[in-house]
Amino acid sequence: MTILSSFFNRASNAIHAYPSCSKLLVLCTISSGGLVAYSESQAEPGSGIPSEKKKKVLVLGTGWAGTSFLKDIDVSHYDVQVISPRNYFAFTPLLPSVTCGTVEARSIVEPVRKIIKKRDGEVQFCEAECVKIDAAGKRVYCQSNIENNLVGNKEFSLEYDYLVIAVGAQVNTFNTPGVQENCHFLKEIEDAQKIRGTVIDCFEKAVLPGLSEEERKTNLHFVIVGGGPTGVEFAAELHDYIHEDLVNLYPKAKDLVKITMIQSGDHILNTFDERISSFAENKFRRDGIEILTGRRVVNVSEKEVAMNIKSTGESCSIPHGIVLWSTGVGTRPVIKDFMEQIGQKNRRVLATDEWLKVKGCDNVYALGDCASIDQRKIMEDIATIFEAADKDKSGTLSVKEFQDVLDDIIIRYPQVELYLKSMHMSDVTDLFKDPRGTDATEVDIEGFKSALSHVDSQMKSLPATAQVAAQQGAYLSRCFNRMEQCEQNPEGPRRFRSSGRHQFRPFCYKHFGQFAPLGGEQTAAELPGDWVSMGHSTQWLWYSVYASKQVSWRTRVLVVSDWLRRSVFGRDSSRI
Amino acid sequence: MTILSSFFNRASNAIHAYPSCSKLLVLCTISSGGLVAYSESQAEPGSGIPSEKKKKVLVLGTGWAGTSFLKDIDVSHYDVQVISPRNYFAFTPLLPSVTCGTVEARSIVEPVRKIIKKRDGEVQFCEAECVKIDAAGKRVYCQSNIENNLVGNKEFSLEYDYLVIAVGAQVNTFNTPGVQENCHFLKEIEDAQKIRGTVIDCFEKAVLPGLSEEERKTNLHFVIVGGGPTGVEFAAELHDYIHEDLVNLYPKAKDLVKITMIQSGDHILNTFDERISSFAENKFRRDGIEILTGRRVVNVSEKEVAMNIKSTGESCSIPHGIVLWSTGVGTRPVIKDFMEQIGQKNRRVLATDEWLKVKGCDNVYALGDCASIDQRKIMEDIATIFEAADKDKSGTLSVKEFQDVLDDIIIRYPQVELYLKSMHMSDVTDLFKDPRGTDATEVDIEGFKSALSHVDSQMKSLPATAQVAAQQGAYLSRCFNRMEQCEQNPEGPRRFRSSGRHQFRPFCYKHFGQFAPLGGEQTAAELPGDWVSMGHSTQWLWYSVYASKQVSWRTRVLVVSDWLRRSVFGRDSSRI
Repeated sequence: MTILSSFFNRASNAIHAYPSCSKLLVLCTISSGGLVAYSESQAEPGSGIPSEKKKKVLVLGTGWAGTSFLKDIDVSHYDVQVISPRNYFAFTPLLPSVTCGTVEARSIVEPVRKIIKKRDGEVQFCEAECVKIDAAGKRVYCQSNIENNLVGNKEFSLEYDYLVIAVGAQVNTFNTPGVQENCHFLKEIEDAQKIRGTVIDCFEKAVLPGLSEEERKTNLHFVIVGGGPTGVEFAAELHDYIHEDLVNLYPKAKDLVKITMIQSGDHILNTFDERISSFAENKFRRDGIEILTGRRVVNVSEKEVAMNIKSTGESCSIPHGIVLWSTGVGTRPVIKDFMEQIGQKNRRVLATDEWLKVKGCDNVYALGDCASIDQRKIMEDIATIFEAADKDKSGTLSVKEFQDVLDDIIIRYPQVELYLKSMHMSDVTDLFKDPRGTDATEVDIEGFKSALSHVDSQMKSLPATAQVAAQQGAYLSRCFNRMEQCEQNPEGPRRFRSSGRHQFRPFCYKHFGQFAPLGGEQTAAELPGDWVSMGHSTQWLWYSVYASKQVSWRTRVLVVSDWLRRSVFGRDSSRI
Repeated sequence: MTILSSFFNRASNAIHAYPSCSKLLVLCTISSGGLVAYSESQAEPGSGIPSEKKKKVLVLGTGWAGTSFLKDIDVSHYDVQVISPRNYFAFTPLLPSVTCGTVEARSIVEPVRKIIKKRDGEVQFCEAECVKIDAAGKRVYCQSNIENNLVGNKEFSLEYDYLVIAVGAQVNTFNTPGVQENCHFLKEIEDAQKIRGTVIDCFEKAVLPGLSEEERKTNLHFVIVGGGPTGVEFAAELHDYIHEDLVNLYPKAKDLVKITMIQSGDHILNTFDERISSFAENKFRRDGIEILTGRRVVNVSEKEVAMNIKSTGESCSIPHGIVLWSTGVGTRPVIKDFMEQIGQKNRRVLATDEWLKVKGCDNVYALGDCASIDQRKIMEDIATIFEAADKDKSGTLSVKEFQDVLDDIIIRYPQVELYLKSMHMSDVTDLFKDPRGTDATEVDIEGFKSALSHVDSQMKSLPATAQVAAQQGAYLSRCFNRMEQCEQNPEGPRRFRSSGRHQFRPFCYKHFGQFAPLGGEQTAAELPGDWVSMGHSTQWLWYSVYASKQVSWRTRVLVVSDWLRRSVFGRDSSRI
């Protein structure tokens, strides 16, 4: 054992010493802002500020955003404390695989304490849930979720200088009656484990003596509400599990089992490219997965899912054995309460500025699924921008004058660049071309307004994905680490409304594409540059990317060996 | 993947073709009656009796006994149906390893349906619990344990021609107050998973802010009641887990954690050789595991374990974070109810004869932990034996006459052989030597009685171990498979009370030794021939035996890779 262990250490050291080696390990990876295992800390080693002078940074949550922030925060400058009801980071994109045992739950989690132990200073972790944020008092109130009869107080409170909220979102039931009681969700590890057990329950119950054919069919009817990536991936996993493994062990069930997907829109995967959407629909149809589109679920009872057909207004219902509800995310109660405190009562989701700072609140940052960036509209600042750009105060803007402020505008209002791209304009001066295509050399305030009038339509809130959260965490830790430096030398864009520059550049999301595994060793992917890739080769790309993105060598080895194990022995169907 | 899979199949076939290969896989294995993966069925291929003529064999339970019976039963002669509340077989000797994540729960379970699928005929399985046995009506009543809102009846009943009861035992609390509510047990997979989570809870709770030193210590006090093999192995695993993994992640907890073992006897492992017992005690003492011997636990509350010191009669109590109760096995309610029906009301445990047939009941067999063989005393039959042996009716038995019946006596009353061994007698005629050591040539009934008078003291009930259960399962399936054959040509010993021979030889347990893993890669073992082995090399023997005894190649690969994973990455401490 010792020999093996030391061999492994040597191998692992070699990989650290020659970082390019690790790239050889995977066929091809799309580099992204996600967590790369053992990534070198971007934090410059600090000057070692004595502990009593260090500012207290309190991080709520250990999901993608929180963990990514923790990976890079410079502990020589900050006292960092983390609060989360889960003492681990979970690689959530593999949750659908856990529901069917393609990958084991343990293979995609890494204890937070292991992650923070790698940081050279000390980061404190407490397994507790934040139940109240007191922004005025700079304090959070926490509660331990441990239900055993252990001694000691369950509640405590902590002070902070900076608060980083990364608690994630909860399931959105849209207040549909019966959903909370009768549906499964797929947000946490426990959800996936529960689904795995229930799928087996459905099969075991369906083959018991004394049930009617109808009852057997009902128990083996798997209903998925929501045709987004999670629902689709679950449907695909479930189909593979049933047809590759379960029907061999439950031969009676073979002709009784059915999967149905209910989608309110006209197509599944409607955030993806159309080609992917129709590829998925065709594959599912071939696999016998029924897709009911244009239907809104209005009630889920113990035995039935009731829905309205949007086009005709008719109602109908289907019996079910198990329902997975995966329709979107909602705001957690603690965040709702916090929003009321800071005057964001009427918003749907916690708003931050472009630097991830919570609006209406000092020293509080929010990132990941629990918050949304409230991107400033260029039209709100149009007059000030014009004034600032018009150096000679001529009342008109020359192309030269505009180009002088352009870089700052593009950084401050990234929608400008998106708009240019969407209109296939190569140069910003194209904005000022008149309808006949002739260049304008000067533009007045009205012309300026009309040229930029459609720019803000390009603003989109970021999707609630791991990729966004991880990039935000990395971005925010970098800001924290450069706080002092950038106070002296701000690196952000020019302030049009006042003098000087912003301290930091705003957060800018880079989209590296997304995958939609469709089962049968086939995956569809949207890749950077609007590429679309589908089929078996894309599945291998998926394997490579997901293996390379694992948070530690342990989880990487486990996930890969789970894939191998599945391909050799199949998936386990023990009800544990 | 296909290549890999077919390679694997080829390798596996090769091992089947050359059985000796499989022996190369392990350093050294103690061959036992346990389950050997893919063992060739001992059942001679039957004549293919039409299904309507086949007798229905109903098996209750899928533990060691039940599974071992199922592996070999000839399905061409019997309609076999299995009922168990668990749809998997669990390799229970590794349960203590599961409590600390040395081995994952999934690695030691194999779905029953996979095991029965390997049999050439059809064996039916239902996931349900037997709630009542109606011996008179030859029917059992079952209930599904599935708690989901699935449709269809939960209850059903099944008829049988032969019933094989192998439901195992439950924990014995000896009616100690508070045990059921406040203690953990270690009989099922779920128990082990629950313990694993609670250990982490104890650590997470202990390092929360605002607890007193005393409270932290209480939460980190792990108490084990019972110093048998399970308790000892758990203590050892827990100690390793804490000191190899957890204290690195919870540095604050290092000096607060404590393990205490409470044993009612004077020594732990008191069913083992004395050398092992004291080796274990010394090792535990060095490891800082406190052993409190000679104490009887009288109450377990939410916070404290109260006990009496046997020698002085004093009472004392200790606070605890978690208590494991592992003191022995008790009878399940369904078996108690069955015992009342068949006139075994006053017995502690279901009694069978030496052929595993339940006493007072036709066509019902019981094996494993739920039953106990009621070995016939030789003194009860002494007169009949004498009469049968005394062929010339002389009123005395010559050595020759005695030797003629000896083989049958030894088979029918195995205690005779044990007695000879314990008295270091090489020959049975030694029994008749008079105190001066001179041989007697003739012996009368009184001399015969006095010579055998101490023989029955050697009768011991078999321990509640996997080894016994597995051997009983294999024995019973062999009897079933040879039922017809042995009706014509009985293979059992001579019937002394009536004429003819018994149909089968009685069940005879072969003890292949036992292990007691003590942590720190050290194990103690009692090996056949009263050998005792202790230390690191025995740990490797343990690894080999436990790997070779796995029920399938899947679990074997998983268990071995779990061991490797642990030695490279340590044990996971995520609270899932």
